[in-house]
Amino acid sequence: MPRKIILDCDPGHDDAVALLLAWGSPEIDLVAVTTVGGNQTLEKVTRNALAVAAVAGITGVPFAAGCARPLVREVETAGDIHGDSGLDGPVLPAPTFELDPRHAVDVIIDTVMAAEPGEITLVPTGPLTNIALAVRKEPRIAERVREVVLMGGGYNVGNWSAVAEFNIVVDPEAAHIVFGEKWPVTMVGLDLTHQALATPEVEAAIAAVGTSPARFTVELMDFFRESYRGAQGFDHPPVHDPCAVAYVIDPSVMTVRRAPLTVELTGTHTLGMTVADFRHVPGPGVTTQVAVDLDREKFWALVVDALERIGEPAR
Amino acid sequence: MPRKIILDCDPGHDDAVALLLAWGSPEIDLVAVTTVGGNQTLEKVTRNALAVAAVAGITGVPFAAGCARPLVREVETAGDIHGDSGLDGPVLPAPTFELDPRHAVDVIIDTVMAAEPGEITLVPTGPLTNIALAVRKEPRIAERVREVVLMGGGYNVGNWSAVAEFNIVVDPEAAHIVFGEKWPVTMVGLDLTHQALATPEVEAAIAAVGTSPARFTVELMDFFRESYRGAQGFDHPPVHDPCAVAYVIDPSVMTVRRAPLTVELTGTHTLGMTVADFRHVPGPGVTTQVAVDLDREKFWALVVDALERIGEPAR
Amino acid sequence: MPRKIILDCDPGHDDAVALLLAWGSPEIDLVAVTTVGGNQTLEKVTRNALAVAAVAGITGVPFAAGCARPLVREVETAGDIHGDSGLDGPVLPAPTFELDPRHAVDVIIDTVMAAEPGEITLVPTGPLTNIALAVRKEPRIAERVREVVLMGGGYNVGNWSAVAEFNIVVDPEAAHIVFGEKWPVTMVGLDLTHQALATPEVEAAIAAVGTSPARFTVELMDFFRESYRGAQGFDHPPVHDPCAVAYVIDPSVMTVRRAPLTVELTGTHTLGMTVADFRHVPGPGVTTQVAVDLDREKFWALVVDALERIGEPAR
Amino acid sequence: MPRKIILDCDPGHDDAVALLLAWGSPEIDLVAVTTVGGNQTLEKVTRNALAVAAVAGITGVPFAAGCARPLVREVETAGDIHGDSGLDGPVLPAPTFELDPRHAVDVIIDTVMAAEPGEITLVPTGPLTNIALAVRKEPRIAERVREVVLMGGGYNVGNWSAVAEFNIVVDPEAAHIVFGEKWPVTMVGLDLTHQALATPEVEAAIAAVGTSPARFTVELMDFFRESYRGAQGFDHPPVHDPCAVAYVIDPSVMTVRRAPLTVELTGTHTLGMTVADFRHVPGPGVTTQVAVDLDREKFWALVVDALERIGEPAR
Repeated sequence: MPRKIILDCDPGHDDAVALLLAWGSPEIDLVAVTTVGGNQTLEKVTRNALAVAAVAGITGVPFAAGCARPLVREVETAGDIHGDSGLDGPVLPAPTFELDPRHAVDVIIDTVMAAEPGEITLVPTGPLTNIALAVRKEPRIAERVREVVLMGGGYNVGNWSAVAEFNIVVDPEAAHIVFGEKWPVTMVGLDLTHQALATPEVEAAIAAVGTSPARFTVELMDFFRESYRGAQGFDHPPVHDPCAVAYVIDPSVMTVRRAPLTVELTGTHTLGMTVADFRHVPGPGVTTQVAVDLDREKFWALVVDALERIGEPAR
Repeated sequence: MPRKIILDCDPGHDDAVALLLAWGSPEIDLVAVTTVGGNQTLEKVTRNALAVAAVAGITGVPFAAGCARPLVREVETAGDIHGDSGLDGPVLPAPTFELDPRHAVDVIIDTVMAAEPGEITLVPTGPLTNIALAVRKEPRIAERVREVVLMGGGYNVGNWSAVAEFNIVVDPEAAHIVFGEKWPVTMVGLDLTHQALATPEVEAAIAAVGTSPARFTVELMDFFRESYRGAQGFDHPPVHDPCAVAYVIDPSVMTVRRAPLTVELTGTHTLGMTVADFRHVPGPGVTTQVAVDLDREKFWALVVDALERIGEPAR
Repeated sequence: MPRKIILDCDPGHDDAVALLLAWGSPEIDLVAVTTVGGNQTLEKVTRNALAVAAVAGITGVPFAAGCARPLVREVETAGDIHGDSGLDGPVLPAPTFELDPRHAVDVIIDTVMAAEPGEITLVPTGPLTNIALAVRKEPRIAERVREVVLMGGGYNVGNWSAVAEFNIVVDPEAAHIVFGEKWPVTMVGLDLTHQALATPEVEAAIAAVGTSPARFTVELMDFFRESYRGAQGFDHPPVHDPCAVAYVIDPSVMTVRRAPLTVELTGTHTLGMTVADFRHVPGPGVTTQVAVDLDREKFWALVVDALERIGEPAR
Repeated sequence: MPRKIILDCDPGHDDAVALLLAWGSPEIDLVAVTTVGGNQTLEKVTRNALAVAAVAGITGVPFAAGCARPLVREVETAGDIHGDSGLDGPVLPAPTFELDPRHAVDVIIDTVMAAEPGEITLVPTGPLTNIALAVRKEPRIAERVREVVLMGGGYNVGNWSAVAEFNIVVDPEAAHIVFGEKWPVTMVGLDLTHQALATPEVEAAIAAVGTSPARFTVELMDFFRESYRGAQGFDHPPVHDPCAVAYVIDPSVMTVRRAPLTVELTGTHTLGMTVADFRHVPGPGVTTQVAVDLDREKFWALVVDALERIGEPAR
């Protein structure tokens, strides 16, 4: 039976791939897509989410806009990586449907409370503002959600600072809230996603699908490569967000390690660091785990497979 | 024309008096009462709010429950001051109406967005969790709200620590959010409310009203006196929360001083301190002010007057 | 019997007056003068100390230079208040004697360890770097020093930030060390020293002494007035540092209040605040106290009296 | 020409091995040994240093005691690792010479200032309190010292907390001072030293030397193994401190990586973390580097070789 997920995202090149992967995978039942200000402003990432939906021919899934800014800190976006639109590179089609009129926070709460306990998995691939607000507004979702599988953080790697990752550091208080709740949390962080590089071979395999969503993906990767080359010295861009979706599809795509996990909120040089404590064998009460090693081949095969299933959407 | 207010409270002895003052004053149009975990748990303070409504015969006003816990920090309550029920002392009557089914955050948002710009004043007398969540969920309320007049903080006085006051320090991030928004903020803090002592003369004047709400108030004050005597060495209890309501009724009841105002979020000894900067003449962009000196006589006259107007509610 | 003090200072206009007061008072036995980077660089304040010694005809007292910079933080000076030289205004005479070759820290340690227990009082009127280093290098001085009477801090007043005073905030870790040691600490802070204003009447009384040290003092005050008018909006300059010396001469010159006292080291808006906790009656273990109210007349009489005793030094 | 070093240590089992390595190596000219409170109290580690000197027959080297406690924080020791004496396991011989009467801080300053610029290397293997105090008391040593090669920290590994190492976290302000000075700093941290495990093969090679210092070393390692097994789940104990000495003897014993390095002073979960920023190619101004990979064979060969050269000291 496919896994019901809410994808909470801020597209964002890799969010777009995550959305395509979720939509194209038979193992995933995409029950809602919610957006949050992050890689770009809420307005832009919401438009981008609808554009990706148009590219992929997504229908029947509510898309809802959420929080425009972090809980406590000032807005920071990643225009250096994702461009002015937040999804620079390909031409973005016009939306083919309207946003759900509800706030993302209420879509999350309503969906989780209407489902069976343990039915819904949250997959956040942006700052955790929506998820944090949802669980503070309706604390009961913490026990009803099956698990949270998020892209963000890094136990030994940073990008936005020496030791912090963008999604976490731009709203560290939200991350603190999400990491501290009762639901199980799998952190798919930079330690893992820096292994998910869109090499030329990967791009060639995607291009070989030969559809417009595949071409769209290649154009995203081309822009992403240039961004990462310039900003962070990568030869090939790390495609972070679909890794979290891939873990829901097939946990064997990566190894994980259980460990207590906290978010640093007061550090001068470590603000937003996701601190994993590997010193001891974790006790049974530890419900947080971090992603360690990626099976690259299996991962990219999932992406290619999803694009093949999406095929050429009717326009 | 009476001022429309939403009273966001955590009754609490002084919140109860604030509610009575708001309900009994012809200058106030009480459009909603929302509750927040603070002096006691959300469940208890919500029940207490309904009990006070029963005592005062409040009808036609939506009462809605809000956040059960602070945004980022763990729950802390003030049982040492307000007792186990949060409103120890008098016998509490059963509720006479049902809670509004909406969450307090949505009641605040809906009420503000449905009203004219500048029509609604927020009067929080507990931790600022609900208000913070509301403005993060719907940022447009920051420009529609007329002003925020809150009980909390203190520029030179603390009670929960040497320099921090309970309402602010239990959810300092919420306070940071509220103080930092575009709306004007008047902070009625301990500097002011420690002047609002329920002396025997004050109690006698209240008792002389001779109604059951007045007797209820006297019983609250008697319990409150014992609490403050034991916990903080006061001879007579400071009745904090109605001071904020009184300022909305008649700003001449106190002097205020404009100054930049921030909430300390990282201090070891100063967490939750409300830092007012009096060093310079404030520029026109400064929209925060602090309460300084109370006209005690005028203040207590407002309270007595409200109780007289409430009279003896039909049961 | 006169009180033996080490004056640890950073002249500085008010430090200069403190030095004149200490030298001219029969109640004080000035056993050493040590300097510390603060109002200006160590080099400048050390030269200034020697210049004041020349003006006052001080002899037989070791003067030693100490720390050039704070323990942990970067150097900050108060050129806006004290001018480029640190003692702008009067013409500064050349030194009439050499510095002691020892480091100030060693002069403090040697002097305290060579004296009887309880014999030496430390009077710091600059950042507390020297004192902190001394007690970390030789912990036994904490029990041998009679008391520390320092100018710095403020429980309800700031100048370098909304709630922090210059001497403390430029080296808060040093202050933390000094406040936390076993010796009794009297904090003569801005709450007190903002009462020590050099009004025209005060200046006239000083001028009437008619000596060159008195004229020097008047010239210092004239420059100081202009600084404070421009930088902090004062009509008359607060002459901070001699207040600490005055307390040693005659404690009745001010009222003090015992209270636990800590220095805030991690606050975003409160770094370097001296937090006094007045909420409870202090227990017997509390050995810190803060200055509250100044007897202005008595204070200025001490200054005038000291200048009269100094008279016209031989050149 | 042998390298002149001051070994600033807190013996400590691995400090003892570091001292033996330094004394027995022809590449090292041990010009002074200074002690600092750390693994145990200053009194104990100083006695231990003299005991090790007696075991090894060290003569002609000044040993001086330094700071008994961290600059800003409270004392913390590592009795769980080093036992009550700080050097539990072997029988400790009585000292054979007296301590230098000077404070360690002054020994460091005097030695560095008396030597040629670039002549003295500082090798701290305990908390950095002495070094920090020395450079604050005499800032000119920062330019005269050749380099600082220290055992402490870890860019991806912690022991005293999830991400902090004992030597750094017990006096993080001292570490901040040392890391921030002009001298080059090589941090030999847990990343490296957890590769220096005293396996049974290593112990056998040491035992084969057959002298009393070798037997002493084996007894130290035996105790150390039990400590690390119980406290941190190691099979064989990591022998941290001699790694720093080994790097001075022969830098090819390990690989290092240049990177900006800072100490976290305000983190809730990251206090005392040594943050290395590997995101960019370091500019020429970066004078800090971290140890990465140990040549285990070469390292232990240095230790065995030193013990062989020490031989059987005359008693």
